Amino acid sequence: MKIIRSATGMAVLSQRFLREGVRIGLVPTMGALHDGHRALIREARLRCDALVVSIFVNPTQFGPQEDLAKYPRPIAHDHAMCRKEGVDVCFEPTANAMYPNGFQTVVTLPTVARRWEGEIRPHHFSGVATVVTKLFGIVRPQVALFGQKDFQQSVLVRQLVKDLNLGVEMVVCPTVRETDGLAMSSRNVYLSQEEQVRAITLYKSLRAGAEVIRRGVTDGKAVQSAMAHVLKKEPAITIDYLALCDPSTLEPLCDVTSRVVLLGAVRIGSVRLIDNLLVTLPRRSSK
Amino acid sequence: MKIIRSATGMAVLSQRFLREGVRIGLVPTMGALHDGHRALIREARLRCDALVVSIFVNPTQFGPQEDLAKYPRPIAHDHAMCRKEGVDVCFEPTANAMYPNGFQTVVTLPTVARRWEGEIRPHHFSGVATVVTKLFGIVRPQVALFGQKDFQQSVLVRQLVKDLNLGVEMVVCPTVRETDGLAMSSRNVYLSQEEQVRAITLYKSLRAGAEVIRRGVTDGKAVQSAMAHVLKKEPAITIDYLALCDPSTLEPLCDVTSRVVLLGAVRIGSVRLIDNLLVTLPRRSSK
Repeated sequence: MKIIRSATGMAVLSQRFLREGVRIGLVPTMGALHDGHRALIREARLRCDALVVSIFVNPTQFGPQEDLAKYPRPIAHDHAMCRKEGVDVCFEPTANAMYPNGFQTVVTLPTVARRWEGEIRPHHFSGVATVVTKLFGIVRPQVALFGQKDFQQSVLVRQLVKDLNLGVEMVVCPTVRETDGLAMSSRNVYLSQEEQVRAITLYKSLRAGAEVIRRGVTDGKAVQSAMAHVLKKEPAITIDYLALCDPSTLEPLCDVTSRVVLLGAVRIGSVRLIDNLLVTLPRRSSK
Repeated sequence: MKIIRSATGMAVLSQRFLREGVRIGLVPTMGALHDGHRALIREARLRCDALVVSIFVNPTQFGPQEDLAKYPRPIAHDHAMCRKEGVDVCFEPTANAMYPNGFQTVVTLPTVARRWEGEIRPHHFSGVATVVTKLFGIVRPQVALFGQKDFQQSVLVRQLVKDLNLGVEMVVCPTVRETDGLAMSSRNVYLSQEEQVRAITLYKSLRAGAEVIRRGVTDGKAVQSAMAHVLKKEPAITIDYLALCDPSTLEPLCDVTSRVVLLGAVRIGSVRLIDNLLVTLPRRSSK
């Protein structure tokens, strides 16, 4: 496995791959790899010839009060997982190589970024859109893989690829969960053991929402109450938002349609957690 | 010569070129081609295998009060010139293909766009940066050519390519002028014959600025006065700005350095004209 730190070095290698007709796959990460990333890497391995995992804790997607400094960076562990999963290239640029003096370009998607995470984290999605555009420019992947856990991010990147004609096939892989249902996240290490147990309530709340939808409830407010009801039993948790949305636009829905996404974001102590569930209803017979 | 209207069609052709090791060159234009474009096309012809000229009157770089509707579109004449100059592909997308329903991504370069044209035309440069990123995504050129006449645009695109790692070599070609000195522009057709004669004063003003610099004047204000003095003799002309700037950053300079750009923008009736001159001083002996 090659470890490449220079953006130019990576770009040169990608150009060589392209000239040779090699299909490049990219799994963009911030490192601290867990089984969710492993699932992305394994799916990517099946879909490309040269598999690149980028590891870059992107400062521009963190707010000033957020956890950039303490974000976990277990690089030896990350390399070991990449090696084990047959990754060809770990691309690990420095912040200075990505954002040298004079850097100024910002890529924004005002409509996708307006709500939910974008409302709570004002510059987060312009940071994501800009760094993804850069990574695609450097690595030139034919296919890129993202986790469903960051649902709004996946909607944003899909729109970005379409809008800027980036020519990258987007694959979104299902959220990988602990056996108790907690969505895997590099930020779960911030949780104490007790908090980890409480954190499962977020998933339970989304499950409760999905459950009432499957039982035939179509009123958006009723679904939201069912979700909130579960979370309110856990006083250690503060709700940032709970929402029923159109999965393509992320606009909130008043009524359940055939396919919805339930989004949730909560705080436990100083830790923020997000999760989501896609709910697809079977078509009802028109009898 | 191929005429391609579909973005997908163009992207597919470019992918084929890249797989075959063909070097793609792009001259992005808004059509209404004149000898300035011809010079870009000829220079491009020497630098690539497959030469693409894009013709797209990009609505997002026009302000609401500007000349989008009346912008000249002599497409038969443009095709004839492209054919004559050995262009391989004319890429002519529709506005709807470039900006379909739901389109929302904006690429901005706040520092380059802050002054001069960007101040007078507030959304112009985000329109330019976004469409250039899209054209580069579709056409995948190794080299792209721009005219020096739109000096600030060339600085912006150079920074954009660097910031987003677009991997395109930028070539900026000297301004082509009428025999009397007027910079060629598709907008010159808006000028009456009398206005065309008066318009030359802009170039004369820049020449006067360059002249006093060469004569040893180093005070920025004095250079500006010399330029303004020439233009004030032409009452039909209103000055938008006259400036002495650093050619890389476009920041205004108080003192002449070894290399400066003189920028000018004026109005004659309802027509806006811009022009510029690069002035490089020979190194002075340190005696």
